[in-house]
Amino acid sequence: MIVEPGPLLAAIDSPDDLKKLAPEQLVQLSTELRDFIIDSVSIYGGHFGASLGVVELSVAMHYVFNTPYDQLVWDVGHQAYGHKILTGRRDKFPTNRRYHGMSGFPKRSESEYDAFGVGHSSTSIGAALGMAVASDYKGEKDRQHIAVIGDGAMTAGMAFEALNHAGVANSNLLVILNDNCMSIDPNVGALKEYLTDITTSRTYNKVRDELWNVLGKLSKFGPNPQQIARKVEAAMKATLLKQSNLFEALKFRYFGPVDGHDVQHLVTILNDLKSIPGPKILHCVTVKGKGYALAEKDQTLWHAPGLFDKITGEIYKKTPDKPQPPKYQDVFGHTMVELAEANDKVMGVTPAMPSGSSLNIMMAAMPDRAFDVGIAEQHAVTFSAGLATQGLVPFCNIYSSFMQRGYDQVVHDVALQNLHVVFCLDRAGFAGADGPTHHGCYDLAYMRCIPNIVVSAPMNEQELRNLMYTAQLPENAGPFSIRYPRGEGVMPQWRTPLQRVAIGTGRVVREGAEGGVAILSIGHIGNYAVKATETLAAEGLDAGHYDMRFCKPLDEEMLRDIARRYRAIVTVEDGCLPGGFGSAVLEFLTDHGFHLPVQRLGIPDRVVEHGSQDELYKECGFDAAGIAQAVRDQNAKVAVSNLATLLL
Amino acid sequence: MIVEPGPLLAAIDSPDDLKKLAPEQLVQLSTELRDFIIDSVSIYGGHFGASLGVVELSVAMHYVFNTPYDQLVWDVGHQAYGHKILTGRRDKFPTNRRYHGMSGFPKRSESEYDAFGVGHSSTSIGAALGMAVASDYKGEKDRQHIAVIGDGAMTAGMAFEALNHAGVANSNLLVILNDNCMSIDPNVGALKEYLTDITTSRTYNKVRDELWNVLGKLSKFGPNPQQIARKVEAAMKATLLKQSNLFEALKFRYFGPVDGHDVQHLVTILNDLKSIPGPKILHCVTVKGKGYALAEKDQTLWHAPGLFDKITGEIYKKTPDKPQPPKYQDVFGHTMVELAEANDKVMGVTPAMPSGSSLNIMMAAMPDRAFDVGIAEQHAVTFSAGLATQGLVPFCNIYSSFMQRGYDQVVHDVALQNLHVVFCLDRAGFAGADGPTHHGCYDLAYMRCIPNIVVSAPMNEQELRNLMYTAQLPENAGPFSIRYPRGEGVMPQWRTPLQRVAIGTGRVVREGAEGGVAILSIGHIGNYAVKATETLAAEGLDAGHYDMRFCKPLDEEMLRDIARRYRAIVTVEDGCLPGGFGSAVLEFLTDHGFHLPVQRLGIPDRVVEHGSQDELYKECGFDAAGIAQAVRDQNAKVAVSNLATLLL
Repeated sequence: MIVEPGPLLAAIDSPDDLKKLAPEQLVQLSTELRDFIIDSVSIYGGHFGASLGVVELSVAMHYVFNTPYDQLVWDVGHQAYGHKILTGRRDKFPTNRRYHGMSGFPKRSESEYDAFGVGHSSTSIGAALGMAVASDYKGEKDRQHIAVIGDGAMTAGMAFEALNHAGVANSNLLVILNDNCMSIDPNVGALKEYLTDITTSRTYNKVRDELWNVLGKLSKFGPNPQQIARKVEAAMKATLLKQSNLFEALKFRYFGPVDGHDVQHLVTILNDLKSIPGPKILHCVTVKGKGYALAEKDQTLWHAPGLFDKITGEIYKKTPDKPQPPKYQDVFGHTMVELAEANDKVMGVTPAMPSGSSLNIMMAAMPDRAFDVGIAEQHAVTFSAGLATQGLVPFCNIYSSFMQRGYDQVVHDVALQNLHVVFCLDRAGFAGADGPTHHGCYDLAYMRCIPNIVVSAPMNEQELRNLMYTAQLPENAGPFSIRYPRGEGVMPQWRTPLQRVAIGTGRVVREGAEGGVAILSIGHIGNYAVKATETLAAEGLDAGHYDMRFCKPLDEEMLRDIARRYRAIVTVEDGCLPGGFGSAVLEFLTDHGFHLPVQRLGIPDRVVEHGSQDELYKECGFDAAGIAQAVRDQNAKVAVSNLATLLL
Repeated sequence: MIVEPGPLLAAIDSPDDLKKLAPEQLVQLSTELRDFIIDSVSIYGGHFGASLGVVELSVAMHYVFNTPYDQLVWDVGHQAYGHKILTGRRDKFPTNRRYHGMSGFPKRSESEYDAFGVGHSSTSIGAALGMAVASDYKGEKDRQHIAVIGDGAMTAGMAFEALNHAGVANSNLLVILNDNCMSIDPNVGALKEYLTDITTSRTYNKVRDELWNVLGKLSKFGPNPQQIARKVEAAMKATLLKQSNLFEALKFRYFGPVDGHDVQHLVTILNDLKSIPGPKILHCVTVKGKGYALAEKDQTLWHAPGLFDKITGEIYKKTPDKPQPPKYQDVFGHTMVELAEANDKVMGVTPAMPSGSSLNIMMAAMPDRAFDVGIAEQHAVTFSAGLATQGLVPFCNIYSSFMQRGYDQVVHDVALQNLHVVFCLDRAGFAGADGPTHHGCYDLAYMRCIPNIVVSAPMNEQELRNLMYTAQLPENAGPFSIRYPRGEGVMPQWRTPLQRVAIGTGRVVREGAEGGVAILSIGHIGNYAVKATETLAAEGLDAGHYDMRFCKPLDEEMLRDIARRYRAIVTVEDGCLPGGFGSAVLEFLTDHGFHLPVQRLGIPDRVVEHGSQDELYKECGFDAAGIAQAVRDQNAKVAVSNLATLLL
């Protein structure tokens, strides 16, 4: 099925083609671009609402600016579909987010129009400022540098850090604030309320105009100064409280708010802004999902809805013939409520991922005990630390790759003080279609080097529930990390009784033949090891399998037994090989004088691109077939070695 | 030598004693407290200017608030000496920052008055907000939660994230902005200029009062409305541009600015603020180093001057009888200028550490090529990434423990895009007297798990210069990390010619006896291994020593040779054992089928407290004696093993 672009869009293979259009044609082009996105995403999938919200902005920017010489940085980047379509990637669009296909985010290696690779939020201002300062240094006075950032992304600290620097750097930087009151979930926090206030009360100029108006009218009729004063005060108060411009305070020139869907007006204002030097911000009000009624109505659902019928709005779902395993995130969400009902110390914290983490279940059930703190991973961790100092037990849920944003806070505010904060790292391991920016490759390595912390990963839903239960017990009153992947587990009947797990104990999944090979797995990938041992058993190869469950502390007793019982070990993890779980096993074995061969399977030391989790496991050699092959290889070496020993 | 407190201070063993004083005695007490700090720091050392700046604030807060029930969080914490002295630690003060002595920062395990452990900046608002939200949940309506934060710390993103959350949380939180225009170096950025504007133009209330005044006067003489309008506009403009209150925009109630050295006024205003609910900010203007003239004059020098004569102001320096090795940071600073002179692409970036990193040398020589971006590690990294996209080669200098703040940016903005950014990690390994918050324990582990990056550490000044030179060569156009410790190197004659180092190559420091033990070291700690091998040689034990120089990529050829030539390995690093350099060596050996014993020396998997670097190396068993002992132990095992082989 091929999506046909409209006639104007069909003729645009680069922004040069776009620039040939008359300004009044841009409305039609925007409609065609919007239709193309709706058609494509309904059929091929991908992010949806965000790109619909910036159709006119995408058209206007490429119309006005001399891209790629002028540098356009899209914050987060899932809203850049229009940008991609206009910059020569229209025909590649069906491969969006597929294995070996186009990335769902801007990517420098994909196009010269993608000035900066993105995925995580709030990087655009700092990156564009770097480009602008480089232009200053090189004397490229005419070059424009534009960061397009959402109001949600603006709450993250690094955006503020960049504003603070840009405000005094005096470089040619335009920040376009794409204000739609949304992250994936509704945006929260004081800044969001402030932006709403601005938009409601209109601009500084407007207020000033009104004031002049009032004074002008009064003058005609011979005013009473007290009356003037009262009016002036009312106007000032409105201005100061609602209108006190935060961005002007940070030395940006502020323009707006403007309607982000009026493409011709956007062209005019962007043209005007080109000639204004220094740091400036254009406040654009947009609607996420603009132009697709259902998406405008339920913006969270339509952030990335999956495939759908664009006419009826029906989102296609598999209709399974038997009960399916739940998503890990939903097991987390429901278990939070169970734990909180039984333990009044349990609290929930998420940085802007209520629906992504399923903490929204607890937020609905217990709004005073579960907090969305905005896109603010650093704060989420330190806020949790603050709660923990008061004897509460916060569960701070942050995707593995986003936890990189709160790393210092984990070390400095939680671990060094040995506070009882539970970190739940969703999307650990390969994130799938979102690709390298979202893969949670490094958490086992970056967590296990921190003192005081327990580092764990459940193999299934029951284990996740039991680890969560264990983590909140008073006897385990220190930092505790639990990682689990994106997507579904393996247990359709997952509401198992909550049971305590002894810290640092693994589980025997399968006893193997003595003198053979043992597989040591951590986390959900252990289910692939189960398949591998089944395959091997059918071949007559009787491998052991141990779900180690804890990367730190390791189950030393189990490891000693394994080292004595088997002749070779294969470790498996959905995490980076340098410094990860396998590396921890090597440390234990070496420290304790065991010298048996260990083959480590996991994410190799390179950037792994996007694809389905299964495609990537296969590529990296730790799908079931890869695990089985590693066992066969080790088994063959053991056999050779046994033979050699016999012969000597 | 004992420092005698004044009579009022001598009677204060806790804030309860302080509360017995009459308000007018607080001026005298403040003088005594200031004298005590000056006397003590001049004799025992420590941070200086910051605590002098908050003497009155410390007195007023403990006078007004019911500490420790009311919770007081000091941001960064090096300004908390007055707080410590007033809360029962006056007599312990001589042990400040010494091995097994009092911490130089607030620490929960040290006192119940230290509500939150600190060291890194900008954590206080989020932590205090966590405490405040916990109080809401528990129904402790009367409990006060106070964060004292500097204007420098306010520029860091996590402070903004916390403001954004607090502004809508409606909890009982008082942020005291200690505005002295300084970090260690002068504060920079738009926020600082904004605060200066506020302070210059005074408060909203003041402006409003003035406006009313003007209107009132005009009314007496029958005004011309156009005249009114002009005046009003001027007042509004001043108000809006200079006075647009950024904190009110974030839904905080703003009070101030007030004189932070008027202790009696502070008592009054803090008492008033106690009864105002919700989030509020008190803007205190203070002078860093207040009360010690020299410290007020050169605030950076007197941030932590070392021991000094309090009368003459002479800062004691060792007068060495022969040329001494330079500090690594100065080698960095001077080499930056050399590199930048030869390569016009080289740029320098520091987050608020010009003097701490010695980038100030380049900032003075080439102000358009070296940037202080404020306390903003995240932005420093992504800004550097932006520069790198334009073909420049930024050297981004961040202390090892502060680099934890920019971790996601290293992964997401630099490494995934394989951009040419050089990270120079100063203060790697034990930081010394600053203690666990500042120890740079984890960087080898958290860096080497990231793809594309080179991870290196020089053993001496020449190696640092050569690694810096190598890192900026076009042939090495990817992420490159160079870590080095606080303090001096080993080469008095350090201005050696710059030489290219082949990536992933180590250096033979000493060939040892075949069949014996090899020491593999990384970085400056290798100099201790040199001493160890000298001691061992004197005992007739001929150990090898290899300065591996690169933790990633490892010198595989050298490792193969070592594995074949020796019977045991001792690895030494000034970094954490889990996942660190030794772990990387284990991975290589295991992956390539080498099975020789390896003993790993480094920072153990626990929180190591403060002390001199040498004290801590000894405690952790990797000073020269510890290294020598490890070699002896391994050598004995090799001998036993050889004997066993002979007997079999």
